[in-house]
Amino acid sequence: MGKRQEFKFPKTTIERLSYYSRVLEDFVKRGTDTVSSEVLGHRLNIKPSQVRKDLSYFGDFGKRGMGYDVKYLLKELRYILGLDRKWGVIVVGGGHLGSSMTNYPGFMKRGFVIEGIFDTDKNKVGTAINGVPVLHTSKMGTFIREKGPEMAIIAVPDNAAQSVADALCAEGIKAIMNFAPVHLSVPPDVRLLDVDLTTKLEILSYYMSFSKDKLWKVFS
Amino acid sequence: MGKRQEFKFPKTTIERLSYYSRVLEDFVKRGTDTVSSEVLGHRLNIKPSQVRKDLSYFGDFGKRGMGYDVKYLLKELRYILGLDRKWGVIVVGGGHLGSSMTNYPGFMKRGFVIEGIFDTDKNKVGTAINGVPVLHTSKMGTFIREKGPEMAIIAVPDNAAQSVADALCAEGIKAIMNFAPVHLSVPPDVRLLDVDLTTKLEILSYYMSFSKDKLWKVFS
Repeated sequence: MGKRQEFKFPKTTIERLSYYSRVLEDFVKRGTDTVSSEVLGHRLNIKPSQVRKDLSYFGDFGKRGMGYDVKYLLKELRYILGLDRKWGVIVVGGGHLGSSMTNYPGFMKRGFVIEGIFDTDKNKVGTAINGVPVLHTSKMGTFIREKGPEMAIIAVPDNAAQSVADALCAEGIKAIMNFAPVHLSVPPDVRLLDVDLTTKLEILSYYMSFSKDKLWKVFS
Repeated sequence: MGKRQEFKFPKTTIERLSYYSRVLEDFVKRGTDTVSSEVLGHRLNIKPSQVRKDLSYFGDFGKRGMGYDVKYLLKELRYILGLDRKWGVIVVGGGHLGSSMTNYPGFMKRGFVIEGIFDTDKNKVGTAINGVPVLHTSKMGTFIREKGPEMAIIAVPDNAAQSVADALCAEGIKAIMNFAPVHLSVPPDVRLLDVDLTTKLEILSYYMSFSKDKLWKVFS
């Protein structure tokens, strides 16, 4: 695997690598040794040619006509996705949404460790949610400097989101997943990922209104 | 606008239509009358040619060199996305994640009304979360027949997800957003959308590990 390098490819490729790795994990569990791009693609409604193209950006993982070695490809994908290590994550906002991150299915398994929740509500501060301590937002800077989490999840009301983002970035957080439906400004070296589940329901409402593509499914 | 028709285009187009409509709403608020594909695309890091292509699947919304009429385009997009009506939604699973759906930013504003939460926990049944009643899962069928919600959100543990999906489909639910990280089987006329936020964190961990594309942002 060697030195990490930068790759050039469409952004959606990364999301698909994540899906491939999930299917591969399932194959490992079942004891499957090799998998073709057809089988891998079929499980995700992705064309085999797309699977091959996505993987080819990162290396030559299969032998022509032999398929991919399941364990080897999974190991490589996990490495590429940065899943060969643990990531410390803090959550800002201790409402239901922020709280749900403490036991969100898959976070821990994939190495994302929620280390603390920050809130300003006196009734919440000092408690723990699924074993994760709830601390006052004023302690965020100290916590980040001492514990060194690299990622943060913003789950606060719209009007508080920008100031929270500012504080996180000032303290050195470099990756943010933001649930607030507002356009946040962050320094150029910070990765910002906006998550809007309303968009997901809109995809459903679109299909409920229009489409007859009955087998439509999307992983997202 | 006339009769609803079926369109042929890539699946990711729908998600982008949703993002366009958000930017257009913002422009309406600011009193902007017309917008170019360049400006619309710039706000979302999407190429102007992609914006024009996406919109062209659904009609001829702009005059060459004149840009798009903001209010008209927004109205059309909302219609296309099925947002010209309200959608009744139920949530199965009254944990933090399910509970967070009752006041998820944007659901109500976009016409997605959470009508009930279903759980088997006796301590939760009979209560209300943000004004949404928590009912016993055994009442789900009756509720669906009487109130007629068309969509459901599954926020239960992995091992319960398939039986919940089976029950929902048997009662006539036609669109499901599923948070459980398992591969669900549903009848061919049911729209299933799997949501996995771990994938989102993996996109961040990828970029934290590899990329130097400092201005990278994605709406998702």
